[in-house]
Amino acid sequence: MKIEGKNIIGNRISAESQNFFNATDPVTTQKIAPQFCEASSGEIDSAVKIANEAFQVYRNMDGKKRAQFLICIAEEIVALDKALIERCMVETGLPEARLLNERQRTVNQLNMFAAYIKEGSWVDARIDYGDPERKPLPKPDVRSMQKALGPVGIFGSSNFPFAFSVAGGDTASALAAGCTVVVKAHPAHPGTSELVGQAILQAIKKCNMPDGTFSLLQGQSHEVGLGLVRHPLIKAIGFTGSFRGGKALFDEAGARPEPIPVYAEMGSTNPVFILPGIVQEKRNDIARDLAASVTLGVGQFCTNPGLVFMEKSENANELTATLSKHIADTPAGTMLTEGIRTNFQHGTNLLQTITGVDVLAAGKSSDSGFTASAHVFESDVKSFLTNPTLQEEIFGPSTLLISASDKNEILLAAQKLHGHLTATIHGTPEDLRQYADLIHILEQKVGRLIINGYPTGVEVCDAMVHGGPFPATTDSRTTSVGTLAITRFTRPVCYQNFPEALLPNELKTDNPEQLWRLVNGKHVKQ
Amino acid sequence: MKIEGKNIIGNRISAESQNFFNATDPVTTQKIAPQFCEASSGEIDSAVKIANEAFQVYRNMDGKKRAQFLICIAEEIVALDKALIERCMVETGLPEARLLNERQRTVNQLNMFAAYIKEGSWVDARIDYGDPERKPLPKPDVRSMQKALGPVGIFGSSNFPFAFSVAGGDTASALAAGCTVVVKAHPAHPGTSELVGQAILQAIKKCNMPDGTFSLLQGQSHEVGLGLVRHPLIKAIGFTGSFRGGKALFDEAGARPEPIPVYAEMGSTNPVFILPGIVQEKRNDIARDLAASVTLGVGQFCTNPGLVFMEKSENANELTATLSKHIADTPAGTMLTEGIRTNFQHGTNLLQTITGVDVLAAGKSSDSGFTASAHVFESDVKSFLTNPTLQEEIFGPSTLLISASDKNEILLAAQKLHGHLTATIHGTPEDLRQYADLIHILEQKVGRLIINGYPTGVEVCDAMVHGGPFPATTDSRTTSVGTLAITRFTRPVCYQNFPEALLPNELKTDNPEQLWRLVNGKHVKQ
Repeated sequence: MKIEGKNIIGNRISAESQNFFNATDPVTTQKIAPQFCEASSGEIDSAVKIANEAFQVYRNMDGKKRAQFLICIAEEIVALDKALIERCMVETGLPEARLLNERQRTVNQLNMFAAYIKEGSWVDARIDYGDPERKPLPKPDVRSMQKALGPVGIFGSSNFPFAFSVAGGDTASALAAGCTVVVKAHPAHPGTSELVGQAILQAIKKCNMPDGTFSLLQGQSHEVGLGLVRHPLIKAIGFTGSFRGGKALFDEAGARPEPIPVYAEMGSTNPVFILPGIVQEKRNDIARDLAASVTLGVGQFCTNPGLVFMEKSENANELTATLSKHIADTPAGTMLTEGIRTNFQHGTNLLQTITGVDVLAAGKSSDSGFTASAHVFESDVKSFLTNPTLQEEIFGPSTLLISASDKNEILLAAQKLHGHLTATIHGTPEDLRQYADLIHILEQKVGRLIINGYPTGVEVCDAMVHGGPFPATTDSRTTSVGTLAITRFTRPVCYQNFPEALLPNELKTDNPEQLWRLVNGKHVKQ
Repeated sequence: MKIEGKNIIGNRISAESQNFFNATDPVTTQKIAPQFCEASSGEIDSAVKIANEAFQVYRNMDGKKRAQFLICIAEEIVALDKALIERCMVETGLPEARLLNERQRTVNQLNMFAAYIKEGSWVDARIDYGDPERKPLPKPDVRSMQKALGPVGIFGSSNFPFAFSVAGGDTASALAAGCTVVVKAHPAHPGTSELVGQAILQAIKKCNMPDGTFSLLQGQSHEVGLGLVRHPLIKAIGFTGSFRGGKALFDEAGARPEPIPVYAEMGSTNPVFILPGIVQEKRNDIARDLAASVTLGVGQFCTNPGLVFMEKSENANELTATLSKHIADTPAGTMLTEGIRTNFQHGTNLLQTITGVDVLAAGKSSDSGFTASAHVFESDVKSFLTNPTLQEEIFGPSTLLISASDKNEILLAAQKLHGHLTATIHGTPEDLRQYADLIHILEQKVGRLIINGYPTGVEVCDAMVHGGPFPATTDSRTTSVGTLAITRFTRPVCYQNFPEALLPNELKTDNPEQLWRLVNGKHVKQ
């Protein structure tokens, strides 16, 4: 497929504005052809309007048909084959093996949602039968289920060009829920975005989905994104990116005449607690694996472990020394964009200026491309408690070790944490028994708790929660990975005293879809 | 029990400030003793801080123990017996029979949530077992469930002194979810609020719940409510009241350094569509029942039907005439407060000044107390489409008939609707077949659709949705009546690679709580 450098407005390719931009190869720092035409305000309006027209059909479409559509999108993405992987490698600097894995993950996500909506019980169908004989008043027949919210605006992320981008988790869950989607492509990989957009367009044609079910807007300026968030027909926003970007969209959406929900996943420092017993038992393994987690993908994951808490001891010193050696040995890595590299350098430079923070080691450096060196810093709980900057995310291969004098300081530090996506505890069975109160505190701070593992690597499954309290996200009540994400884009609708023929299939008395339902208070599938 | 006129801060009775107010009897317009002491900023802070301390225990308490607590609250409310009903009658002007019914409803709500959390499957427990042999990477063991958000601030409503007040739906669902609660009592019925607060305090003692699980703040000024919303330890807000009040709290909560969710139920005009066939068949019955619904409880329900759409016809004229006669015959009714009466008069006066709106009838009037006369107005779709005021709620016994020239105008009017709590359609089977597109439009506008019934009377059950798109509420994804309301006050928490002993009971492999769970993609109870 040819990359046109244009916007996809339903089944129409469109380039109205005179504003163009190019992607940049982060390895060569050279611009990549073709140039991309930024979406005009008229194109944004058209995309949302046909998304709303398509929604009138798509929202009531049988779950099994929507499931086929998601599977078809996955197939069309795979069919793009090398063209997609090669374009993406040039735009992101990410290696082929990583991108093949990420493409597979994206396919898995689409197939997971397909299976979920094919089974269908996610709609949370509830039936309370009426009783005309009840005294003092007859009891009405009341039934309810989750229905799609409306057209949704989704912002692709920079760091997952497939899995959190045009056909990523947010798009998959919104389409699964019955929402139509307008994607604002991330300007760091517009060609990758267009190719995936064309794949979705193919799937729309093959599956006979209504025109406008999906549109793709290109843009480097904030105006395109703001135009999408402000459009009165958009009913929810999905976003993965920086705190600044996510919070700005959240504020915009709240200031609309009709406020709408914003699901912004804005990053996290993902504290790791390594308890005394396991420091003694496994300090070398942990040092090696932690260094690998910190530097994986040049640290460009929102689950990157950026804060590590340990109590002072000889063993802890040894772990620190081994970790520092691994970091020092780490080759320079190419970051996704110049901006990300600049922010990383800014963050690590700033940390070095803070009293009480020391650099323990820096990895190898390089002058070619947008490269960055891994970093490990050290500070103590006293500094951590007084300086909020130590808790801020530095997006990239960097981590900050915080030494505590005792268990009490560990608990104080945990209590001081704001919201994060994850928290990790390494401990022996005895450690975990003794630090039960630490788990209790961390449960109130994060979306996912990990024991004796690493936060990077987010399993795509029903039970996953990739979310957490503010400022990790703008809405802790949801997740952006896993099937539970579908509830972001729905609301309950209730049908009172409806004749059978007018009820949605999911709520008909004889349960033609064979769903698990809550009927008169019982979970049943009859 | 004696009414002290003070705040309840955990198990402590407190009156720090020098700001006092009294309730007013809406029948005599006289102040009622005793005076109530408005909560000080120190008292607000104390209440929230002990709510947070209590939360550390209460959040992990067994669902069966929390269920007993809810049942005990219901018992203690009933034990207040006549003292509660009599005080409430004086403060609200509501008749005894209505208050006995509402108390029963409040008891039913508490017992419903008790049964729901005793069964326990609401936590949406999800388990994906790990697979250490999976290639290329081992699969982690991932489990998740809903956990309570934290201390919650709840605002009592004026119009339901029991069911949407101190121990109303929001308090019941928050306590069921595992949140501790600080209630801001509505200043129109502070004595009723204090009595119910004392009942909850009794239940806390009897059930050995932690001190701070519940507090009650009195206040007439906005400062008390704002102090509650702004407190950093408060994690969500429940509110039932006016658009102005709810939207102000929503904006405050969004502007906090850490934004929190606000569930504000702000009222609705509840459009009713009476289709041509049924106008012909049942015009007299509908006129009678609609008049009863409009004037029920002096129209002081958020589900009051304030907009009625019909196509012009001789039969429709007859329905209108009969309805007008019923309204004209309606005795004057005492409203809850002077403010509500003033707003009602202002709303009905304003409507009369609008070109294209006519008064068809006004009910009987009275000079005694805060009384209001029922009103019925008439206008047409053309005026409705051009003047947004016609869609605004007038809280009280008033309705506006909108005549349409044909089906097309009916659909145009439906499309013009903003969010409401309910929409109602009266139709013969043939009407409903012919107006399928009307149902399709209304499904996107409201939380509950009713066929051949009336929106007043909200059944307390699993399937109920008392909510809807903005501006009916600030969060269409939830309900304030029915068991689904529990999800307002929770978020998912995920446990990765946890040893069995550290998992919450709900997630242990052998399912000791016998919950319905999603295990490896299957709904099971093993």
